[in-house]
Amino acid sequence: MIHKAMTDYKNKSEDGKVEIIVNAAQKRFAHFGLCKTTMNEIASDVGMGKASLYYYFPDKETLFEAVITKEQNVFFDEMDKVIHSGMDATTQLKKYVKLRSLFFRQLLNLSKLRSDFFYNSKPVYNKAFERFNKIELEMVSTIIQSGITSKEFKRINKNEYAEFLVHLLLGVRLVKLKYKDINEFDMNDYEDLDKKSCRVAGMFLKEIVADAS
Amino acid sequence: MIHKAMTDYKNKSEDGKVEIIVNAAQKRFAHFGLCKTTMNEIASDVGMGKASLYYYFPDKETLFEAVITKEQNVFFDEMDKVIHSGMDATTQLKKYVKLRSLFFRQLLNLSKLRSDFFYNSKPVYNKAFERFNKIELEMVSTIIQSGITSKEFKRINKNEYAEFLVHLLLGVRLVKLKYKDINEFDMNDYEDLDKKSCRVAGMFLKEIVADAS
Repeated sequence: MIHKAMTDYKNKSEDGKVEIIVNAAQKRFAHFGLCKTTMNEIASDVGMGKASLYYYFPDKETLFEAVITKEQNVFFDEMDKVIHSGMDATTQLKKYVKLRSLFFRQLLNLSKLRSDFFYNSKPVYNKAFERFNKIELEMVSTIIQSGITSKEFKRINKNEYAEFLVHLLLGVRLVKLKYKDINEFDMNDYEDLDKKSCRVAGMFLKEIVADAS
Repeated sequence: MIHKAMTDYKNKSEDGKVEIIVNAAQKRFAHFGLCKTTMNEIASDVGMGKASLYYYFPDKETLFEAVITKEQNVFFDEMDKVIHSGMDATTQLKKYVKLRSLFFRQLLNLSKLRSDFFYNSKPVYNKAFERFNKIELEMVSTIIQSGITSKEFKRINKNEYAEFLVHLLLGVRLVKLKYKDINEFDMNDYEDLDKKSCRVAGMFLKEIVADAS
């Protein structure tokens, strides 16, 4: 209901082949990164001719997009659990911030992405990211709405504030990427990101939590 | 004292020629942007041979850097006034946020920059931006320190929080640039940026202002 795009994706892979290819590609990308992985290797991994592979995925970028989409869906599944957990909205928002940080880290590990990937991504990735942004905003909105309904949060504009939080966190990541190349990210950087994201979440919550009365 | 780099720059232009060239270049860049301006035109504007111009500035990028530095110094002069105004620290921080937004706008107008300029800038610009970031951080730290001293603010780590605020605002701008090309920026985008920057400032101040007791 919340993320229709996700169901669409799942329908597409009904014949099983797509899923097998995507799983193999995911492993390759995770170990060797996007640039160092070839379509030949993936075809060989799944015991398929190159022509058959191209039947399913016209190029490496499209296949990479499918892998990203799969990773995104894992994040959305986790978020879905949080949203339906019955936890209070404040806790849900904190969980979101943690899961979002983790997802960013996984995506970086997956692809050993170059930093310009995030800035000037090709249309094919844009499609995956647009879908992601849309669903992410809807989910954060849903949490904020539940907090408004339960009177935990002030009666704010849920969409406006969802966008504000999502963009603040994105800003924290973009600033980090501006000062440091993705390929040089280490544990300290991830910890720094987590710390800053948590601080942003804390500030944001102070802003929207209803005054005790 | 706070911004030594600024004094250094001023010393360099003692012979007057540099200043004349930079002023001419600034006008050209503001009207036609970086890409459409040639060194020939600037030489002609100041009634100078191309060889003489190259004596002062080896290439267009170096000249552009000098123009940026000049613009930065205008911002720093304004900030200097704020810091020495005797206003309370909260007001000073709000002024900083306004001036910073304005400076961003001026820089965009100046250069009709392409958005990748901000992401993958050449070393020559990096030098100007590094210098800027350093001085900006020092100035915001100074304001926070004055707020701590006057007991307006909590006893926080001034450098850590200065960086946090500066980066939050940078994040707001980077997110905007991610979703919209600089060349398509219009009044609404600037207003949106101002609004978001103000909201960030408000949240940040709530976080650091000392509890009334």
